[in-house]
Amino acid sequence: MDNKVIKIGLLGLGTVGTGVYKLIGRRSDEMEQKIGANLEIEKILVHNLKKTRHGIEQSLLTDRWEDIIGNEEIRIVIEAMGGIEPARTMILEAIAAGKSVVTANKDLIAEHGRELLEAAREHKVDLLFEAAVAGGIPIIRPLKQCLAANEIDEVVGIVNGTTNYILTKMFEEGMDFGEALAQAQELGYAEADPTADVEGLDAGRKMAIMASAAFHSRVVFDDVYTEGITKISARDVAYAREFDCVIKLLGVARNTPEGIVVGVYPMIIDKNHPLATVRESFNAVFVHGDAVGDTMFYGRGAGEMPTASAVVGDILDVARNMQYGCMGRIGCGCYKELPVKEFGEVKNRFFLRMQVTNEPGVLAQIAKVFGDHKVSIERVVQREAKKMHAELVIGTAAVKEYHMKDAVDALKEMPIVKEISSIIREY
Amino acid sequence: MDNKVIKIGLLGLGTVGTGVYKLIGRRSDEMEQKIGANLEIEKILVHNLKKTRHGIEQSLLTDRWEDIIGNEEIRIVIEAMGGIEPARTMILEAIAAGKSVVTANKDLIAEHGRELLEAAREHKVDLLFEAAVAGGIPIIRPLKQCLAANEIDEVVGIVNGTTNYILTKMFEEGMDFGEALAQAQELGYAEADPTADVEGLDAGRKMAIMASAAFHSRVVFDDVYTEGITKISARDVAYAREFDCVIKLLGVARNTPEGIVVGVYPMIIDKNHPLATVRESFNAVFVHGDAVGDTMFYGRGAGEMPTASAVVGDILDVARNMQYGCMGRIGCGCYKELPVKEFGEVKNRFFLRMQVTNEPGVLAQIAKVFGDHKVSIERVVQREAKKMHAELVIGTAAVKEYHMKDAVDALKEMPIVKEISSIIREY
Repeated sequence: MDNKVIKIGLLGLGTVGTGVYKLIGRRSDEMEQKIGANLEIEKILVHNLKKTRHGIEQSLLTDRWEDIIGNEEIRIVIEAMGGIEPARTMILEAIAAGKSVVTANKDLIAEHGRELLEAAREHKVDLLFEAAVAGGIPIIRPLKQCLAANEIDEVVGIVNGTTNYILTKMFEEGMDFGEALAQAQELGYAEADPTADVEGLDAGRKMAIMASAAFHSRVVFDDVYTEGITKISARDVAYAREFDCVIKLLGVARNTPEGIVVGVYPMIIDKNHPLATVRESFNAVFVHGDAVGDTMFYGRGAGEMPTASAVVGDILDVARNMQYGCMGRIGCGCYKELPVKEFGEVKNRFFLRMQVTNEPGVLAQIAKVFGDHKVSIERVVQREAKKMHAELVIGTAAVKEYHMKDAVDALKEMPIVKEISSIIREY
Repeated sequence: MDNKVIKIGLLGLGTVGTGVYKLIGRRSDEMEQKIGANLEIEKILVHNLKKTRHGIEQSLLTDRWEDIIGNEEIRIVIEAMGGIEPARTMILEAIAAGKSVVTANKDLIAEHGRELLEAAREHKVDLLFEAAVAGGIPIIRPLKQCLAANEIDEVVGIVNGTTNYILTKMFEEGMDFGEALAQAQELGYAEADPTADVEGLDAGRKMAIMASAAFHSRVVFDDVYTEGITKISARDVAYAREFDCVIKLLGVARNTPEGIVVGVYPMIIDKNHPLATVRESFNAVFVHGDAVGDTMFYGRGAGEMPTASAVVGDILDVARNMQYGCMGRIGCGCYKELPVKEFGEVKNRFFLRMQVTNEPGVLAQIAKVFGDHKVSIERVVQREAKKMHAELVIGTAAVKEYHMKDAVDALKEMPIVKEISSIIREY
């Protein structure tokens, strides 16, 4: 026990930074008992010193990085700015100066995780980032510690609250995508430019981080195949319901004998699967290990206080490590170099909805095209057969992505196929 | 890094011990990379040396405790025997000899947790027990570390797989309790004497351990009110379904301003609650913290390999602590002394099903009895009204347990009340 006060430098005072500031204050009475020391925020780095910030002591604010990196008393740096730079450089400088770092920055960890963790190892400090994935839900520590005895072969996550809110409204209230998005924006669940959420980019970064932790091999965002939910229609959702399923934007990471596969895309999933019951803006991560079997971790994936819960949890762990002199105790676990499997080689089952001419022999022609491209059909439903037009819904067996793509390209060329309305993978 | 081989003494070779032995073997190739050391099981304490044990090296077995406690090279003792004695004494002796201990023993921790954790603190060793609650589900480490920044006010768990299996069969297949229990016994989910499971005792022990970790104040099994599921009928389950609910055996722990409340009893719970979707023999623990909000941890609560997953996860943590010289880093977190609230003072909502004489004024008489005992009625359903007989289902507001008990006692005295068929709390 070499310290009674542990001083902290906080970078950024947006949603996450403010939450962290509040939560450390809220717990100050118990800190001594929790970790044998008190936490003190010594300096807060902000862009604009003149902005009015209620409840924050003005003397803590600075716009000079030197006030934090040059202060030897500051032993922990909390990075709550987001983005790649200057966060990356500041974290590297803090580590080099012997400070431990806690960050909530998924973009940075998904891209530069290896570099940062290497630096932390070299300088024998902690770099923790529980908040970078699924907000308040404990998932990095469970993957790295609690489930460490397992060979984990699958991590499937609902790790974007915005899209889960939209899909919940579409499913429960029959809304269309646009309508549900507008409501999510009104309620502050979706940003004015919702691209990163609805196109699966945000979820993709989180999946890269979780896959790295779960499979002990570095996966970066570039390795992740992403597809969003903008093309999902109320009609697709209605079919899913009819099949006793729901549609969710899933991040799927698998460790296969041919390599790691990580993707984010909407999937049709059985309503009895634990992930199917995750509603509104909640997140959940489903993990399968060879010993533990199926597990799931559920909670708030974003928001001021849930994210602060994860950041401050990490800070308490760092503080404990300082008290016991064991910083760097949990570092980078990527001791393997597994290949990333080409996405075209991945097998999935597909739900395919299309509009076709209603005439004799149409189904036979379509079935032949699938067969020619090695796509097995498992089920066909025909609806809305009018004089000239019918809607076909086809369920395939598990087929390789590139076979499916080739089959769809060929279908699009057929005069009897008026439209491929949707293509959704099935879990 | 002071050691390349960490030697282990294993106590017991039943389900848990065998799983631990297998799992350590299965992961041996990666141990060096995971923790910078290899784990070696040096000795296994068993009752009967002569019993044939496939796949276990005979030379490891011993029936002499001295072979483990007296072996200075053994640095970790895994207690997988169960029961209070001799487990308690052996663990205390191991700790006194400077060995760290990992145990899956819920009975022991629920009763003697304080004593054992105190001893570990005094001797600066680790005592970890993740496997004692909810098998493979990470919950102790999340409560003690990941969610450490929260004031946790509620922990609600489905922490007994046998009863959850029975209730799932009753709900999904309309079975009666006896029929579902018989099936659970056939499948090995329930023991020949199922008392500890169906009466809520097993769940009660786990709740005591979780309440202690969550509220930072020691709760022992004696503090836990328990009620089992033997009186739940298919008819109650059918009513629950009609109200868009299910019936689950819940362990409920709350930290209230008047003290801690911990109980285990069947509850009617809304089908949209995450706990309602936990099926078959799965377990789940729902935790509410002031920062993180709602979270849930789901998985296998028992079984050879899920339990081994938790035990070996703990061993890896202990081994890391040894490598970094920070044993005892996570000890007893019970730094408060909160009172336990008298169960009679706890408020609950109740579902009450009763058989009454079908004559004018019956409802008024019954309503008066409730009113006289300060029990507010929120809803009444009358069914099966025949010439002489009717079934009443009453839903109450949140009322004190002892008021409800008094009201029921008074109802039983009324000539028009033929039977109180069931009394179930509502979540």
